[in-house]
Amino acid sequence: MTEDRRPTLTTVAQRAQVSRQTVSNVLNTPEIVRPETRERVLRVIAELDYRPNVAARQLRTRRSSVLGLCVPPAADGISGQVLDRFLHALTEEAQRGGLRIMLFTAPDDEAEIREYENLRATTGVDGFVLANTHPRDPRTAWLAAHGVPFVSFGRPWDRGASSHPWVDIDGREGTRAATRHLLDAGHRRIAFLGWPEGSGVGDDRLAGFLAALDAAGLGPGGVVERCEDGVPEGEAAARRALVRDDVTALVCVSDSVALGAMTAVREADLADPARIVAISGFDDTPVAAAVGLTSVAQPVEDVAARAVALVRAQIHGDPVDTDRQVLIEPRLVVRATSPARH
Amino acid sequence: MTEDRRPTLTTVAQRAQVSRQTVSNVLNTPEIVRPETRERVLRVIAELDYRPNVAARQLRTRRSSVLGLCVPPAADGISGQVLDRFLHALTEEAQRGGLRIMLFTAPDDEAEIREYENLRATTGVDGFVLANTHPRDPRTAWLAAHGVPFVSFGRPWDRGASSHPWVDIDGREGTRAATRHLLDAGHRRIAFLGWPEGSGVGDDRLAGFLAALDAAGLGPGGVVERCEDGVPEGEAAARRALVRDDVTALVCVSDSVALGAMTAVREADLADPARIVAISGFDDTPVAAAVGLTSVAQPVEDVAARAVALVRAQIHGDPVDTDRQVLIEPRLVVRATSPARH
Repeated sequence: MTEDRRPTLTTVAQRAQVSRQTVSNVLNTPEIVRPETRERVLRVIAELDYRPNVAARQLRTRRSSVLGLCVPPAADGISGQVLDRFLHALTEEAQRGGLRIMLFTAPDDEAEIREYENLRATTGVDGFVLANTHPRDPRTAWLAAHGVPFVSFGRPWDRGASSHPWVDIDGREGTRAATRHLLDAGHRRIAFLGWPEGSGVGDDRLAGFLAALDAAGLGPGGVVERCEDGVPEGEAAARRALVRDDVTALVCVSDSVALGAMTAVREADLADPARIVAISGFDDTPVAAAVGLTSVAQPVEDVAARAVALVRAQIHGDPVDTDRQVLIEPRLVVRATSPARH
Repeated sequence: MTEDRRPTLTTVAQRAQVSRQTVSNVLNTPEIVRPETRERVLRVIAELDYRPNVAARQLRTRRSSVLGLCVPPAADGISGQVLDRFLHALTEEAQRGGLRIMLFTAPDDEAEIREYENLRATTGVDGFVLANTHPRDPRTAWLAAHGVPFVSFGRPWDRGASSHPWVDIDGREGTRAATRHLLDAGHRRIAFLGWPEGSGVGDDRLAGFLAALDAAGLGPGGVVERCEDGVPEGEAAARRALVRDDVTALVCVSDSVALGAMTAVREADLADPARIVAISGFDDTPVAAAVGLTSVAQPVEDVAARAVALVRAQIHGDPVDTDRQVLIEPRLVVRATSPARH
């Protein structure tokens, strides 16, 4: 097709039997066009492969309606599944709000910042959604300093960190609910299987466990065994905790650790059928449902909805009508691994 | 900022102390610019928030370098994890080839086709990657009819379907390898736990099982129990298969089904400690590694690399130098659930 024969707004309007303004509305403010008309116009646009005004509109509005999201290069075992669920929910929520999600990847924080530069310059991405914030995170500081709209799934973990819009799950409340559930079921000696000290998320989950013991008059302190995240690691930590004969319940920092604990508990049950040890996990991954593991569910749909609202407001320069920092309560899902004590 | 004070190519070139051509190269053919220079220019572009030529370039080249991928609205249990792993791998491969992945969602095939129209018209997406092709799939026909570059992860399942570029995993070869492995381990009476007849993927996996039995002189036919995908469904199907006392191994169509089978087998082992039943799954999901399940791994990285190459060639109008249809061999991962028969 030569330059001259490219379809124009007028060609589309004629073929779809609508005004040029209607075609323009379909492309710029589709919500004000009747659905049947919108579909007819879109069909004609597709037939003619009419596309130039994408770029022209972007040139005019300086907006792409695209959000960037960095995903890790490969899937990350059982715990990485929460991020994947968030990604699906974010796509849906963004689309509902007239935005799209563009994925990219980077091996570390510095490379991710270079991709921010790249994406702003070459693809015109309007803003970013960050997952997996961590202590001493240079990414949020860079985005704030450059005035780029963004929101993070995860709060800033440094004390005195500059405030920025974020949405997070209240992990402390999650383990508190799990521990309270086990206390209500009659357990008195409960151990926590946690990650090594220093991860914001892990320390927060431990704090909820300790708070629940305190509130039940069983604090301060409690049995705590630490391990890296993983199934064999969880199994070993559970064995260490179960050396104490009076421990009858394990609150685990993740489903991976809980899955390992289930193996250790099965052995302990075989050795002493009178000893029933209850277990709870965290994240409510598909495997938790599959093996009947009580777990703490992260409502990623709520996180996605709030995150899209927060970044959208910044892009449009609207006043942010929700709180700029949102902490969402998780939900305990009770299954077979946390029976009442008999 | 007023219209007049927007940064220009010249402003960027001056600030970065390079020629205007170098700035243009960084944006259009970054691979020919020295990395240090490229980074310096990108840093200046970010500082100045220089963006207009994104749209201008798109206007000139009529290319966005963006591929659309439709993701299901919510995570899909254990079996959905292969798609998520593919998504990560695709992001990485696309980025390596100068392309980005844009996500969208649609409740059904018709809605997905409307989004194709929408994305072509409003965001200028260059092409699409489809996952989860199925019999009577209207999406591939639409894309082919409209001359839109695309590739599918999954072959067309209809006999006589029009050919289009696709990449798929050879599921038949996967179950054949799993069955051969169990035969080599000394098992003679092996059952297949499969999905109801009519799913292309499921029928293909059953065919591999039957072919391996045939090749070993144990065919034609074999013990086949069918169920919907899921853990409790797999458990029930395994119970039905284990009614036959001579069955000592189960080849499962998915890790979900295999996980259910593991529970049924554990019970059978308890009832008769002399009976050891081997199990293999399919997909090598994180849970398979976690519970020691022998499974068939889908090399999604290879699928992603071939898919990007196939769609990229169409976008650039290059001759497609790889096969337009690519079948990739999966890999058997042997773990604890498939011990040799003693």
